[in-house]
Amino acid sequence: MTESTFMRLSALSIAIGLVIATTVSGSAQGPRGKDLEKPLVIAKQGSFFVGGEKKALPALPPGGRGGAPAGGEITINQMYVQYQVPPNGDRHVPVVMVHGCCLSSKTWETTPDGRMGWDEYFVRRDRPVYLADQVSRARSGFDASAINAVKTGAAPASQLPTVLQASNQIAWTVFRFGPEYGKPFPDGQFPVEAADELYKQMIPDFNSILPTPNPSWTNMAALAVQLNGAILMGHSESGFFPQQAALIDPKGVRGLISIEMPCADVNAEQIGKLAKIPNLIMFGDHLGDVKGGPANWADSFATCERYVEKIKAAGGDAEMMYLPKLGIRGNSHMLMQDRNNLQLADMVIAWIDKHVEAKGKH
Amino acid sequence: MTESTFMRLSALSIAIGLVIATTVSGSAQGPRGKDLEKPLVIAKQGSFFVGGEKKALPALPPGGRGGAPAGGEITINQMYVQYQVPPNGDRHVPVVMVHGCCLSSKTWETTPDGRMGWDEYFVRRDRPVYLADQVSRARSGFDASAINAVKTGAAPASQLPTVLQASNQIAWTVFRFGPEYGKPFPDGQFPVEAADELYKQMIPDFNSILPTPNPSWTNMAALAVQLNGAILMGHSESGFFPQQAALIDPKGVRGLISIEMPCADVNAEQIGKLAKIPNLIMFGDHLGDVKGGPANWADSFATCERYVEKIKAAGGDAEMMYLPKLGIRGNSHMLMQDRNNLQLADMVIAWIDKHVEAKGKH
Repeated sequence: MTESTFMRLSALSIAIGLVIATTVSGSAQGPRGKDLEKPLVIAKQGSFFVGGEKKALPALPPGGRGGAPAGGEITINQMYVQYQVPPNGDRHVPVVMVHGCCLSSKTWETTPDGRMGWDEYFVRRDRPVYLADQVSRARSGFDASAINAVKTGAAPASQLPTVLQASNQIAWTVFRFGPEYGKPFPDGQFPVEAADELYKQMIPDFNSILPTPNPSWTNMAALAVQLNGAILMGHSESGFFPQQAALIDPKGVRGLISIEMPCADVNAEQIGKLAKIPNLIMFGDHLGDVKGGPANWADSFATCERYVEKIKAAGGDAEMMYLPKLGIRGNSHMLMQDRNNLQLADMVIAWIDKHVEAKGKH
Repeated sequence: MTESTFMRLSALSIAIGLVIATTVSGSAQGPRGKDLEKPLVIAKQGSFFVGGEKKALPALPPGGRGGAPAGGEITINQMYVQYQVPPNGDRHVPVVMVHGCCLSSKTWETTPDGRMGWDEYFVRRDRPVYLADQVSRARSGFDASAINAVKTGAAPASQLPTVLQASNQIAWTVFRFGPEYGKPFPDGQFPVEAADELYKQMIPDFNSILPTPNPSWTNMAALAVQLNGAILMGHSESGFFPQQAALIDPKGVRGLISIEMPCADVNAEQIGKLAKIPNLIMFGDHLGDVKGGPANWADSFATCERYVEKIKAAGGDAEMMYLPKLGIRGNSHMLMQDRNNLQLADMVIAWIDKHVEAKGKH
């Protein structure tokens, strides 16, 4: 399906879409305005790691304060998780949120312009929330051995990791703040006046050094088991991580929420497994309105439309929330930070209530 | 002063020390046991960045998804800060906590064996708490340009950053869990059964790439101003950061809390500035009981004793809490994670009440 087809579909369905959006948000809108400033009550909060394994340390720069003796070990592939459980949290399925490329869990926290993020909002809507820094990023750390090996001459420069460090300019267009750097879409929902604060969230991405399967997938699956059932949510680079985690071990996975990513071309056996779990996919606006650059969101959307069709054909539950089709315009790739982020959160929560929790076991 | 002098002093002062410790903890002990499981009420929480500047990006690996056009910029030297303010928070001076080498703000959160960390405990004792990931670490990100420059052949391997990646073995001895790897001190307070969870907190340290002055210092000073007054707390690598921040701009700095670090050899003019702010320094036990290795804690202690004397000689307020001298034995370098961490937190809070808050302006 092409972008122009989307446009025609959108035009045709705006009336229907508005009705759906109104119904969704009308039936399950959470707190707004002053109500968001009420004290937040937490039953339990904290942080911990999932996974991790020991690795012998080959070498370190001589004279470095961290210089380890021969045979020293480091711990790698662990995943840092920070959580808050509200007082009524045990009535709901926990939600695990995982960020995208070149970002950290900051994605889900206070927005660049200082509004409430999805993390606290979901907690205020009685959901236990678990934020995971991807393995090899932020507080999860990464294996820097190759850097030290090259610096000390023990390995050639070609063995350095490929580090993704996206520029502010790339972020503007890949995240679809506008058609070109510095020029916003007239109806854009991203708070572009605070774009400099978004750029500060962008940190080096070492996913290229990870083994297969990506330990984030394994750790997400393990976390879902540890929580005795969880909904896994991913965004962009991690958008299909929930499915990858479920393919490794579906036992704890109660729901799959994927935001703005390419869907992998999974085979029939895999579709059979994923069709047993409710799937929600969400895409924003202007998918084909940025020309050039490393991301093609219209193509990504098309891969996910095919994925949704396959899940449905296998008797599964998959919903594509293509926001413009629902009458919601102007959303960027960072839709959890967009001006209407709480409206979108309400839609996700309404989906959870209907597709995951209404099915019981909680 | 030598370690053996400490020992004699300790022996002489245990009786006095016990009285002091009892008085301190008796007069201001916070919640324990089941009371720590009561719901936590938060007036406001979130995260933001302090500082940061734009830098032109020289090159990126060809074909990388983050490949930026010529002239692209990244944002560097920003400091990620996560905070919680309790309902009575405006009655107290905020506390900014900064972690040490090869660690992140995880230092202050849930302990390796799953107990409450200083972050939540201080909030439960009505203090606004701000956790900062040091510039170039964890969610603050770092400048990976040099890695990419070397990988693409644009720079020689010698220009790679020196990355500190401490081994588990080094951590055991430098953090004084015991005299040698795997062998704990009989009276040790660190929960060594959970040492593997501590190792997962250890992540690559890129401080070697930072300019002078370290942007963490500048950002800590700016944060104190932004908060309209704050107590700055550092540990180990960052133990003297509070002082360095105050030397850059003392305006917002209401107190300096330094845990287990070498004290810099500051000059008379600097002492004059630092003597205007209350100083607390805390050291644990077994300072001279680990032989060899990259850290010499007895030497570090001696530098801080000299610092305390200089502040006092300049008419300032400086207190050295050398825990064994107070009758509190067995504390490790990671004393905020030790079994008696809440007792130590109470002592810090009692010091804040007496030395910072009793002086008014709040």
